[in-house]
Amino acid sequence: MVARPVIAIDVMGGDEGAPVTIAAADVARRRYPELSFLMFGDRATIDAALADFPQLKACSTVEHTDVEVKGTDKPSQVLRSARRSSIGLAVAAVKAGDADAAVSAGNTGALMALAKLGLKTMPGIDRPALAALLPTMKTDSVMLDLGANSECDDENLIQFAVMGAAFARIVLGLDHPKVGILNIGEEELKGTDDHKEAADALRLAGPSLGMQYEGFVEGDKIGRGDVDVIVSDGFSGNVALKTMEGTAKLIVELLRRAFRSSLFSIIGFIMSRRVLRQLRSHLDPNAHNGAVFLGLNGVVVKSHGSANVDGFANAIGVARDLVVDDIGNRIATDLARFEQHRALPEAAQ
Amino acid sequence: MVARPVIAIDVMGGDEGAPVTIAAADVARRRYPELSFLMFGDRATIDAALADFPQLKACSTVEHTDVEVKGTDKPSQVLRSARRSSIGLAVAAVKAGDADAAVSAGNTGALMALAKLGLKTMPGIDRPALAALLPTMKTDSVMLDLGANSECDDENLIQFAVMGAAFARIVLGLDHPKVGILNIGEEELKGTDDHKEAADALRLAGPSLGMQYEGFVEGDKIGRGDVDVIVSDGFSGNVALKTMEGTAKLIVELLRRAFRSSLFSIIGFIMSRRVLRQLRSHLDPNAHNGAVFLGLNGVVVKSHGSANVDGFANAIGVARDLVVDDIGNRIATDLARFEQHRALPEAAQ
Repeated sequence: MVARPVIAIDVMGGDEGAPVTIAAADVARRRYPELSFLMFGDRATIDAALADFPQLKACSTVEHTDVEVKGTDKPSQVLRSARRSSIGLAVAAVKAGDADAAVSAGNTGALMALAKLGLKTMPGIDRPALAALLPTMKTDSVMLDLGANSECDDENLIQFAVMGAAFARIVLGLDHPKVGILNIGEEELKGTDDHKEAADALRLAGPSLGMQYEGFVEGDKIGRGDVDVIVSDGFSGNVALKTMEGTAKLIVELLRRAFRSSLFSIIGFIMSRRVLRQLRSHLDPNAHNGAVFLGLNGVVVKSHGSANVDGFANAIGVARDLVVDDIGNRIATDLARFEQHRALPEAAQ
Repeated sequence: MVARPVIAIDVMGGDEGAPVTIAAADVARRRYPELSFLMFGDRATIDAALADFPQLKACSTVEHTDVEVKGTDKPSQVLRSARRSSIGLAVAAVKAGDADAAVSAGNTGALMALAKLGLKTMPGIDRPALAALLPTMKTDSVMLDLGANSECDDENLIQFAVMGAAFARIVLGLDHPKVGILNIGEEELKGTDDHKEAADALRLAGPSLGMQYEGFVEGDKIGRGDVDVIVSDGFSGNVALKTMEGTAKLIVELLRRAFRSSLFSIIGFIMSRRVLRQLRSHLDPNAHNGAVFLGLNGVVVKSHGSANVDGFANAIGVARDLVVDDIGNRIATDLARFEQHRALPEAAQ
C-alpha cells in the first residue's frame, strides 16, 4: 500500500506531447492530491508548460532528456537510444524505485520492450500481457493480451486470466469478475489444445482465485459485456481490438455518407447530433484510456497516442489505482493460490 | 465450363427452412434461367412449397429425407446420422456428379465436416478454408479462413491466398486482386514465423499468380477495403468476422438507446430513419450472403441461417458463379503456377 504514489510521466510522448501530458497531470493532481510527479523530457518545454500550473509544478520534479522516440519508429531500431529517451527514463525511474508507476503515450512497441527489459517479469509470470478496457452494452470489460505476445500456450492464458481478474477487481471494483476465454466457438472441444487445457484449469481453480470462469466467448459476444475479463492470445486479442476500432470507424463513415445523401437526412442529422455525440462519447477511446502492461515488477500504463487531456489524465488515474491497490501483490497472491490448488490431488478439489 | 449448372439445395436448413429456400430458388431461377435444382428434404413440405412456383417445380427434382440436423447440434454428435440428412444428401449429390454445387443454410460445422469428408480436398490443397465477402468503405472484400482451421502454417496461408484471389476474381470481377495477410502490425517482422514466410513467398510469386501482394493488414484496416482479399488463419479470421458482427450490434444498440433518450432525439430518429435503413442495408448479411468452402473437389456454399429469400438467392447466385467460372480449375492452374515459380532458382524470378 503506497500512500503517496510518485508517477513518472513521459512528457514528450503522444501526438501533442507536453501541452496534453502536463495539463493532464494537473487534472490528475486535482483528482488525487496525494500524487507527485517525475517529469521526463525536454526541460525548456516542460518548464514552459508547467508555468501555467504552479500547484503541479510544486509537486513535480523535472529530469531533462532530448532523446525522443517517434510514434512511427520501429522498436527494433531504436532500442539502444530509447533507454535515454523520455520513455526509457520513466521506466528506469520505476525500476530504481524513484517512481511507483510510469505513464506514456509514446511508441507502444518501444514502451513494451523497455518495460520488459527494464522491469523484468514477476515471479510466476512467463510473459507480461497488454490489458485494456473495452466499451460494451453493459459496463466496460477488460481484455488481454492485446498484442504483447504473438503466440501463447495454456500456461500463458491461465496467467493472463489471473492478471486480468486482479486488474478487473481494481479498475471495475468487482469482487468476483466473470472470466471467459476468446475462442471460435462455445463448445468445449473448440479451439486449440492450449485453449482446452487453460479452460479446464480455470474451471477447476477459478473459485479459489476469486473469479467466476464462464467458458469460451466468441468474437461477437465481446461487445455484449457478458463477461468482465476476456482472455486471449496476443494475436487474436490484437485482431479483435483493432477490428472493433475499424468497424466503429466504418459504421460512423457509412452514417456520415448516409446523412449527407438528402436534405431530409441533413435535417435528421442536425436533430440527431446530440445522439451521435452520445454514441461517440460511449465509444471514445479517451474514456477507456490506459492500457496496462501486466505481469512486470512495476506498473506501466500506455495511453493512446491521440489521447486528449482527459484521456491522459484517465491513464494517470489507472496508474494511481494500480499502485494504491497494489496490483503486483494481488497477482502474486492469486498465483500462489493457483499453484497451491494445482498441487492438491484432483479428488480434494 | 458448365453450361447448365445443377444446384443441390438443402431445403430444410436455416431458421425458416422450405418457405425461404424454395422461394429463394425461384428468385435464382428467374435471375439465371439456365439453372436446375435437386431439392433435398421432407417431400410433403417441399411439394407444398413448390406448388406456388410451377416454373421452379418444372426444373426441380425432389429427393425425400426426414433426417434433419438442427442448427444447434454439435457436429461431433451428429456426423453419422447427418449423412442421410438434407445437408448430407446435397453434398453427396455433388460428390456423385448429380449436382455441380450444394447450397445450405444449415449447421455450419456439420456442413464443413460432411463436405470435407465427402468431397475431399483438391490436389495441392492441404486444408480447405471458409471464405466470405465483408462490407467495407469501398467495395466488398473477401476474407478467409473464417474458422475451418484453428491452426495454420505458412503453406496453408499461401494456399488460402491463391484460393481467395481466385474467388475474388470471380465474385468481385477483378483481374489482379490486392491481397494482404492479417497480422498485428504492418512491419515485416511482426507476427509468427509462418506469417513472415507466407509473406515472403507471396511477395515473390504474387505477380505470376495474377494477384498484387500488399503486405500485412491490421484488424482496423479490414473495414477500409484497401485490399480485396484478406488472408488469415482460421482462428483470428473467425475472431475478426465475429467481432465485426458484435461491434455493429453494439453500435446499433447504443444508437437505439441514445435515440430514445429524449423527445428531441425521437424526432431526430424519425427524420433519420431512411439513413439508418441505408446503414442497415449496407451492413446487411443477406447482401453479402454465401460463405464458400474453398479447396474441395466441388462447390459448397454456406448461407447464413437467418438469411431471408434474397439472402439465400444470393448464396445460390454465388454457387452458380463459381460453377460457371470453374473455380476449381482456376485454383488448380494458379497452384501449378506457384509450384513452377517456386521450382525456379531465386535469381531467375
